[in-house]
Amino acid sequence: MKSNIKPAEGKLGILLPGLGAVATTLIAGVEAVKKGISQPIGSLTQLGNIRLGKRTENRNPKIKDFVPLANLNDIVWGGWDVYADNVYEAASHARVLEQHHIEAVKEELQAIVPMKAAFDKNYAKNLDGTHVKEGTRYELAQQLIEDITNFKEKNGLDRVVLVWCGSTEVYFEASDVHSSLEKFEQGLKNDDKQIAPSMLYAYAALKLGIPFANGAPNLTVDIPALIELAKETHTPIAGKDFKTGQTLMKTILAPGFEARALGVRGWFSTNILGNRDGLVLDDPDNFKTKEVSKLGVLEDILKPESNPELYGEIYHKIRINYYPPHGDNKESWDNIDIFGWMGYPMQIKINFLCRDSILAAPIALDLALFSDFAKRANMSGVQEWLSFYLKSPQTAPGLPAENDIFKQLIKLQNTLRYLMGEDLITHLGLDYYEELVESEQ
Amino acid sequence: MKSNIKPAEGKLGILLPGLGAVATTLIAGVEAVKKGISQPIGSLTQLGNIRLGKRTENRNPKIKDFVPLANLNDIVWGGWDVYADNVYEAASHARVLEQHHIEAVKEELQAIVPMKAAFDKNYAKNLDGTHVKEGTRYELAQQLIEDITNFKEKNGLDRVVLVWCGSTEVYFEASDVHSSLEKFEQGLKNDDKQIAPSMLYAYAALKLGIPFANGAPNLTVDIPALIELAKETHTPIAGKDFKTGQTLMKTILAPGFEARALGVRGWFSTNILGNRDGLVLDDPDNFKTKEVSKLGVLEDILKPESNPELYGEIYHKIRINYYPPHGDNKESWDNIDIFGWMGYPMQIKINFLCRDSILAAPIALDLALFSDFAKRANMSGVQEWLSFYLKSPQTAPGLPAENDIFKQLIKLQNTLRYLMGEDLITHLGLDYYEELVESEQ
Amino acid sequence: MKSNIKPAEGKLGILLPGLGAVATTLIAGVEAVKKGISQPIGSLTQLGNIRLGKRTENRNPKIKDFVPLANLNDIVWGGWDVYADNVYEAASHARVLEQHHIEAVKEELQAIVPMKAAFDKNYAKNLDGTHVKEGTRYELAQQLIEDITNFKEKNGLDRVVLVWCGSTEVYFEASDVHSSLEKFEQGLKNDDKQIAPSMLYAYAALKLGIPFANGAPNLTVDIPALIELAKETHTPIAGKDFKTGQTLMKTILAPGFEARALGVRGWFSTNILGNRDGLVLDDPDNFKTKEVSKLGVLEDILKPESNPELYGEIYHKIRINYYPPHGDNKESWDNIDIFGWMGYPMQIKINFLCRDSILAAPIALDLALFSDFAKRANMSGVQEWLSFYLKSPQTAPGLPAENDIFKQLIKLQNTLRYLMGEDLITHLGLDYYEELVESEQ
Amino acid sequence: MKSNIKPAEGKLGILLPGLGAVATTLIAGVEAVKKGISQPIGSLTQLGNIRLGKRTENRNPKIKDFVPLANLNDIVWGGWDVYADNVYEAASHARVLEQHHIEAVKEELQAIVPMKAAFDKNYAKNLDGTHVKEGTRYELAQQLIEDITNFKEKNGLDRVVLVWCGSTEVYFEASDVHSSLEKFEQGLKNDDKQIAPSMLYAYAALKLGIPFANGAPNLTVDIPALIELAKETHTPIAGKDFKTGQTLMKTILAPGFEARALGVRGWFSTNILGNRDGLVLDDPDNFKTKEVSKLGVLEDILKPESNPELYGEIYHKIRINYYPPHGDNKESWDNIDIFGWMGYPMQIKINFLCRDSILAAPIALDLALFSDFAKRANMSGVQEWLSFYLKSPQTAPGLPAENDIFKQLIKLQNTLRYLMGEDLITHLGLDYYEELVESEQ
Repeated sequence: MKSNIKPAEGKLGILLPGLGAVATTLIAGVEAVKKGISQPIGSLTQLGNIRLGKRTENRNPKIKDFVPLANLNDIVWGGWDVYADNVYEAASHARVLEQHHIEAVKEELQAIVPMKAAFDKNYAKNLDGTHVKEGTRYELAQQLIEDITNFKEKNGLDRVVLVWCGSTEVYFEASDVHSSLEKFEQGLKNDDKQIAPSMLYAYAALKLGIPFANGAPNLTVDIPALIELAKETHTPIAGKDFKTGQTLMKTILAPGFEARALGVRGWFSTNILGNRDGLVLDDPDNFKTKEVSKLGVLEDILKPESNPELYGEIYHKIRINYYPPHGDNKESWDNIDIFGWMGYPMQIKINFLCRDSILAAPIALDLALFSDFAKRANMSGVQEWLSFYLKSPQTAPGLPAENDIFKQLIKLQNTLRYLMGEDLITHLGLDYYEELVESEQ
Repeated sequence: MKSNIKPAEGKLGILLPGLGAVATTLIAGVEAVKKGISQPIGSLTQLGNIRLGKRTENRNPKIKDFVPLANLNDIVWGGWDVYADNVYEAASHARVLEQHHIEAVKEELQAIVPMKAAFDKNYAKNLDGTHVKEGTRYELAQQLIEDITNFKEKNGLDRVVLVWCGSTEVYFEASDVHSSLEKFEQGLKNDDKQIAPSMLYAYAALKLGIPFANGAPNLTVDIPALIELAKETHTPIAGKDFKTGQTLMKTILAPGFEARALGVRGWFSTNILGNRDGLVLDDPDNFKTKEVSKLGVLEDILKPESNPELYGEIYHKIRINYYPPHGDNKESWDNIDIFGWMGYPMQIKINFLCRDSILAAPIALDLALFSDFAKRANMSGVQEWLSFYLKSPQTAPGLPAENDIFKQLIKLQNTLRYLMGEDLITHLGLDYYEELVESEQ
Repeated sequence: MKSNIKPAEGKLGILLPGLGAVATTLIAGVEAVKKGISQPIGSLTQLGNIRLGKRTENRNPKIKDFVPLANLNDIVWGGWDVYADNVYEAASHARVLEQHHIEAVKEELQAIVPMKAAFDKNYAKNLDGTHVKEGTRYELAQQLIEDITNFKEKNGLDRVVLVWCGSTEVYFEASDVHSSLEKFEQGLKNDDKQIAPSMLYAYAALKLGIPFANGAPNLTVDIPALIELAKETHTPIAGKDFKTGQTLMKTILAPGFEARALGVRGWFSTNILGNRDGLVLDDPDNFKTKEVSKLGVLEDILKPESNPELYGEIYHKIRINYYPPHGDNKESWDNIDIFGWMGYPMQIKINFLCRDSILAAPIALDLALFSDFAKRANMSGVQEWLSFYLKSPQTAPGLPAENDIFKQLIKLQNTLRYLMGEDLITHLGLDYYEELVESEQ
Repeated sequence: MKSNIKPAEGKLGILLPGLGAVATTLIAGVEAVKKGISQPIGSLTQLGNIRLGKRTENRNPKIKDFVPLANLNDIVWGGWDVYADNVYEAASHARVLEQHHIEAVKEELQAIVPMKAAFDKNYAKNLDGTHVKEGTRYELAQQLIEDITNFKEKNGLDRVVLVWCGSTEVYFEASDVHSSLEKFEQGLKNDDKQIAPSMLYAYAALKLGIPFANGAPNLTVDIPALIELAKETHTPIAGKDFKTGQTLMKTILAPGFEARALGVRGWFSTNILGNRDGLVLDDPDNFKTKEVSKLGVLEDILKPESNPELYGEIYHKIRINYYPPHGDNKESWDNIDIFGWMGYPMQIKINFLCRDSILAAPIALDLALFSDFAKRANMSGVQEWLSFYLKSPQTAPGLPAENDIFKQLIKLQNTLRYLMGEDLITHLGLDYYEELVESEQ
């Protein structure tokens, strides 16, 4: 296995459609890490360890020392945005980082200037971007392909990956034009309004065999046409929606309740946040699509149909409230009504004073580095082992998503072990029961 | 494998040293379940499912339908206590259950009358039991062996297990008398004060080849002498301390932080409770031993030595406060200071309105049923796969404990799969990446 | 003054339009108190003290020993409802009280059977009452007058008061028909749909010189026509909306911030409740009227126009969420963003596990007893001194409401002192500064 | 009255024993306000309003426009400390203010250099100051008198006040040497160890007729000897302990419960803080004295002896925990168990993310300005009307303290109204009940 993985030589371009809060936090952080003045906290590729072999072997290397990942020093940044601000300006407006952290990498950030975006106001009514390309969908796709090609050549890059860091597009369901690559390419030529801008970026990347990961809840690469293209060009794809905040907590806690067969009668989740996301999601219509995706997480983990005594009557409610005093700091409050032995009720209340972009930035980094790694390891199509990072994991068609973050982690780690020729970990440890067996599996 | 497991035929005696809040809640609940008027919520053996084979096979039986466990209808209860109250009276005093739940099984509870306890006031200064045996430690052990033998014969039982549900004994460390079975048995004859009462119960059980599980933080079976005896008589043992409340939450949350490489700067845990446990632990001296055991959990999961950037400076503090207004309802409040990308701080505050005995009772049931199963499956010595249920898991000598509840669960489930001849689950699922491999492991 | 107050001799009838959760909790509680098996907690008339004279005099009698109030044993209950259930049945359905508390006064509750209600479905779309009167508004008013007269005669009552405990009616603003008594009485004859059912009860009461207090946010007696009638018949009136839960907390805390000149940048209030009120208020349209009334409380207390540096930018948001798992137990969570010296921010988070009817019942009792007292003391029109009990206090026309609960309390207490011929309390206490003055005022 | 108050002409010296976190925050803030770059939030003298006359008169001036207080521009700072750091250095070490706020007034802060302190290590075991005076207690007192006199002359001051901002001294009770001025002065000459250093500052001030306010829980001026001296020299005194944080919240909330006759069964208060105060108070012995003083607040407000049904069984517990991750940010968590109608329980949980020095600084300012005002208004001795600012108010001998912050506020405001010749406010407003009376009182 291991011998088939191409090494991470040369430079890696990371192209980000959407140079807003998440993207600028990501770039500023990596540049600060490269200068030795910050730590890439929250990034598994940079700080995570992986156990190898038996517990008694004490082999627990950093993931980045175990798997051939691109080095941070080899990263070259680029991106598109509907505003012409360079990354220094955009980071300052985003008000996620303290200004002195931005100043420390001012030069590096100023050098990154967005390319014009492929944009359609129907997909983001609250945005008034002027820094946009002109043309039909087909022409826009061609321009994006050119952008990527030029970026690669100009910077002398060995490889490129794309990670969508743009706004959430309006909700719509996949239709005929998304059902096959042929129809999709015909749709481009017809300038079919049902093709979202984010799909143009994905199409351009995949056409060039460049991995694409989607950090928003948009469909984007989660349509048959682009899955088909990913396979055709042997390209990894991953999505949807960076797993942060309240959903992250849910996918940690719910597996705990399920593990111990504790019942859940209700789960009330409220959020207050004061940034542009909060303003948009405060509107009942915009919130509806977000809500649908968020609600599924608990059902998937708790499986009410298999456990009707425990989860058959769960009442799950999510509210997002615009609250300007908190700015970019997203705060959540959860009330969880659980019940135990003989049905006796207990309550858990969780108040999370969270920072959304701070949690999202390392996810974007890991998705970029692992997607590049997957490409070099000859993996293509939907990378389900990356669902660990995603709120609404894209799976192979027909397969249910796994939302339990601990099963997602095992899948990620065992995938790495498998690819690197190491034994899988099952935590069985039967050799510790001397009389039964002799070797751990 | 499967063919070697003896079936769960005949009656199973469950003997409980300590018929207080946990034991009476357990018994009342099981009797109510047997009458069809309650549900054994929180019990994996009764309500938990286990996935078998690939995800696409949709095999997800109840554990009790997969593994040959004793049926609840075959259980016969018994126990010892320093008070002579029958279980109906003791349950009423404990004030855990609502009185109408106790009345519904009054007859069954009244029939269970404690045997006299083996007791030494030096190990529980706050108890003034009068319902106690007389004699040297050797004589007490012999009386306990007789108790068990008589109980088995009188009730026509096929098998027996013991689960310690008594109070926490005072802290002390293992010494010479505990270091080998020979020295231990000599110590019994010498009436050595360093042999705690709980060890007498464990000795009696193991001598008869009867499994023993320990629900308190006492050493009890966690000494070389009794591990030796367990192996000699091919008997399973497990311990220590039922995993409930705040520690349960910690072993759920901390793996989540570690999974995502989020740093932890501080974790402040405070508890308020108004029962006898609270009164005892409000004393700084008594609390010290509890604190030591509780503090280890985070260190074990977060491994500061491997992750100094993330966990090297963690400040972990635990406080237990006696607060009579809350009676048996234990409430905890945790303040967790985490940090993410570039070191930016976030806070999580958790308020758990918990009920301790309600969480402990199903654990005691599962430990009883799984210990009996282990005996029939020819497993002996320390059953590390049961660490899922325990705050301070006993391991094979020299092996570090695993406190991550999700790794504990995988170990438990893969142990069951292994014993029943099913494939282990690694969550690898590489066959979903069609071009790479062909069969899941 | 004192000599003009008529004594509380004979029986007092308390008639409640709306025999739902609040009314049945009130009645069951008073009956239990009369039997000596419960305490009227939360009732100032029953348990509150009042300081008289100087601090050093140590005169601090119970209010009921200071002011001539009706004795609980002299109360006779009656009411109207759109359902025919007697109070025992209605209390059982309301699920506020534990069943054993209801059973203890079963006989008394069963004896109270509602009269048919004056009802108009346009004012309460979610109610499908069948136990209703027929006729035009004029005829309904006449029937209510007869109901009251019959009730008084049949029970040999000396005096009667009405306290509205019915549902919140839909929002509407006062219009021409409400602008004078003459137009109102003409409107009755015309069966004018702009006259709400609650106004018919108030009209009937006031016409008979019977005090009326309003526990819901409906206009009801807060219209010129009925204020005019109240003065004409020398009758006290009070309203609107029992002050419970989150608003109670706000009118306690906000005066504290204002007292100390601490700034408030934001106040986010969310509620979860699972009763019928919650279901209704979960609808954005219904919630709007409630929200408007609740939002005013903070503005009134903090006075942003006088204190722009402190409260000029306050962002106040209230959310009510239907959450069935909590039933009648209303839970609120508040996040308050305050700031201090030099603008440094601080946060306060409050989680109130509240019971709405438990807080409302003693308010209804006090309003009944104080209204009766006011009548006997020859007070008429709007009783602003009772604003202590009300979320949205009705004031004399043109006067701003006082929402600070502590100023409301002083007003209530000084009113009682004044009426009973005692010195008012100013907390000046200058005689403690010997050199300055000689007598306290 | 008004005509007897001397105007606030000339310069006012504010001398602070203890130039630590509170004092430096105070000075930096006032200097920033003087430059127009900050607001004196939390200061009633600067931002508070006071209602005059009837509600309908709409007279609501700022307190500083109503009462002749010293202008901030006329303040000259000075102080003593056991460390030689100037105020710029001390403010930087305290880490209360963000550094850019300190830099903005760097020049002003650097100019303030502490005088050598009168110190006795027995009263503050954790302090190792070297910047201290030498001599017997009598000599130290003389040196302090000289310090003050020199400070006044050197700066051309019209008036001076002292506000104690030093550490809490160890606990001890008043004894014979404190019982009269004569014995106290003899004690000075005998270098009596029972005279605490803080008493030397107070003595020096009072001897010169300079007002003294005490921001710590030490006895200091709360002894007969110094009360006698205050009267002799016609000097105002006030104490003890700036009212901040959890106690501030208690004196806001408890009056609310008492107002509504809601019962309180338990109040559990825990604090986490990571500064030097936290470290000291984490020790059970040191905490004991703080606890005693804090516990009294609830009892005083709720008066269990007058209200045994409501407060007779209250269980009040306070814990302070050292928790370094939070540094100077003090966080508190309160669990309050209240009960209402028929005894039904409710819970309130409050999490206060507080900043201690930010709350204390404006109190110190107000105490300084009001003490100076009191002196000019010929008030002397204990200024009980300033108890609004104090955790453990000093009262005239034999008088119980008033801890209800709202009664304290009325006392403060009515005192100002009285001194300025305005009507006292009773909130009676009987003229709104037209038929009863004609003029408001």
